[in-house]
Amino acid sequence: MILEVAILDIKPNHAQEFEKTFAVAQHIISGINGYISHQLQKCIEKNNRYILLVNWEKLEDHTLGFRGSKEYQEWRTLLHHFYEPFPDVEHYESVYTNSL
Amino acid sequence: MILEVAILDIKPNHAQEFEKTFAVAQHIISGINGYISHQLQKCIEKNNRYILLVNWEKLEDHTLGFRGSKEYQEWRTLLHHFYEPFPDVEHYESVYTNSL
Repeated sequence: MILEVAILDIKPNHAQEFEKTFAVAQHIISGINGYISHQLQKCIEKNNRYILLVNWEKLEDHTLGFRGSKEYQEWRTLLHHFYEPFPDVEHYESVYTNSL
Repeated sequence: MILEVAILDIKPNHAQEFEKTFAVAQHIISGINGYISHQLQKCIEKNNRYILLVNWEKLEDHTLGFRGSKEYQEWRTLLHHFYEPFPDVEHYESVYTNSL
């Protein structure tokens, strides 16, 4: 399993509209092959900052499957105009998970 | 529930030692009041980068309870010398969680 991590900084005064749009857009990723789960969380310390965490079965499900799909074009149209700056997206593999 | 997020950049050639030390150190946070769960994950794109995600019942369980505890001194001694630069730590609140 792979964790996609994106810190999303939203243009000033667009946070509410972003949240509404994301409510719709999240249905797009949930239908993609290899999608497992996702979370959108809002930063307490920094206004207009969010973190998107998506679990995928493998890296290519996101980087090739989703980004190469027609659904990605819809995702991009809905969401990318909210971001400033455009986010770095990274992928992580588990080292320890609640492993106590 | 609050999500603590820390992107951890480890000094060159110290990643393996950091992982071994974290295996011990993680027992410290798991005993703190308000701790729910944690994950340590390793970045695929950037060498020596990790993300630490900790779920706490409330913000103060981390910022006051843990950071004000004697256990935090032990955590700090074990882990802080691995970080370069010293990480920003942020807290997030859920907007959407697998809510489809």
